[in-house]
Amino acid sequence: MPFTVMQKVLFKHCDPAGIVFYPRYFEMINDCVEAFFDTSLGHPIEVLLRTGGVPTVRIDTTFTAPSRHGDMLELRLVCERIGRTSLNLNITARCAREIRFQANSTLVYVDKRGAPARWKIT
Amino acid sequence: MPFTVMQKVLFKHCDPAGIVFYPRYFEMINDCVEAFFDTSLGHPIEVLLRTGGVPTVRIDTTFTAPSRHGDMLELRLVCERIGRTSLNLNITARCAREIRFQANSTLVYVDKRGAPARWKIT
Amino acid sequence: MPFTVMQKVLFKHCDPAGIVFYPRYFEMINDCVEAFFDTSLGHPIEVLLRTGGVPTVRIDTTFTAPSRHGDMLELRLVCERIGRTSLNLNITARCAREIRFQANSTLVYVDKRGAPARWKIT
Amino acid sequence: MPFTVMQKVLFKHCDPAGIVFYPRYFEMINDCVEAFFDTSLGHPIEVLLRTGGVPTVRIDTTFTAPSRHGDMLELRLVCERIGRTSLNLNITARCAREIRFQANSTLVYVDKRGAPARWKIT
Repeated sequence: MPFTVMQKVLFKHCDPAGIVFYPRYFEMINDCVEAFFDTSLGHPIEVLLRTGGVPTVRIDTTFTAPSRHGDMLELRLVCERIGRTSLNLNITARCAREIRFQANSTLVYVDKRGAPARWKIT
Repeated sequence: MPFTVMQKVLFKHCDPAGIVFYPRYFEMINDCVEAFFDTSLGHPIEVLLRTGGVPTVRIDTTFTAPSRHGDMLELRLVCERIGRTSLNLNITARCAREIRFQANSTLVYVDKRGAPARWKIT
Repeated sequence: MPFTVMQKVLFKHCDPAGIVFYPRYFEMINDCVEAFFDTSLGHPIEVLLRTGGVPTVRIDTTFTAPSRHGDMLELRLVCERIGRTSLNLNITARCAREIRFQANSTLVYVDKRGAPARWKIT
Repeated sequence: MPFTVMQKVLFKHCDPAGIVFYPRYFEMINDCVEAFFDTSLGHPIEVLLRTGGVPTVRIDTTFTAPSRHGDMLELRLVCERIGRTSLNLNITARCAREIRFQANSTLVYVDKRGAPARWKIT
């Protein structure tokens, strides 16, 4: 079942062209993943960080259409695959029916020393 | 010939795990592209924006190794292909000899209304 | 009557010391002011920007106690004075009963050319 | 003797009004303070953080004139007072002769537990 969050495009997200500055999309993606760990997995990142971490090791993103200040975006996260130490996520952002961006990312669970470790989230 | 910029990893780039928060890498990439347009192409983005824009429409990124506060990164930009309205860039960041991330991006030149237009930069 | 918004301290807000990086507080303040214009005044910033702007001309801030990842902050905004072209705001952030920061800011309403203009918001 | 750094206003700093988004100024101020600790005091923040920290406890800022994309800012830092555990800094940003902002800040040296401690920087 997909996990969704709503995100209004705010002043801080926008650039001189009046559209979202794309590094800000990655902050939105990170916030969405953080909410997913908290709400869907029941493992808040702030707790998980005491014993490990979940760095993003890859992210491929397509920006399909620009987003403007005031747009209401729906970010939809689908967990596509859970590996032994990794997680593949697909995040799609839409405004009304229009896709604004799509991202495929791989996260890896690591222990305190940064070495890949088995998920303890399931 | 590759275009390079040096970027020290600063306090603002780093997260509670003590490594670069990956959305900050996209700001570094954007700064590098901006410097490339200014220095190598002789078309400062602040001038180009008066008549158009260069939105990033795709970026695929692999984060190979973490970067820590104080690391000195070398970002190397290679222009891989100039299309009629697009530009394919490869950006690789290294600290000493170690690769930290690699990104492949596509930028599109657009006019004031946001429609793809022929490059005027060559 | 004070205007309040809740803001969870997220991963993106925090620095290598594990506490909020203070420039991120100013983004929270800006988001709070944006929500106040939208909700309390009925003048969304994205609409107001079509004919003018509301730059911050002064902000004095005291950071009383650090905030950590996962803390739930309440930002309380009080409009202290509405001048002919300016607005004085007080924003206080608390976690439970503890004050984390207090800010006093002055915003000015400007027209398209950047010249101070009479508020049209009342 | 004042400490100065040059900072070009980049695309990432600017908002839909085409001027610097003021939270970005605080990132510039933080970068300037970080460079001051490294260059003038010979105590890089990344080293200092191993045994303590230097949180900003107060900052009062006046934004005198807007800065636009492409402007070259000079940030001038003057250390106004060194207390037992605190530091008072004045930072002024100019473009050519025009003042863009002025900030007065207080930093406190703290140990690993966050308690104020005597400077070891002198």
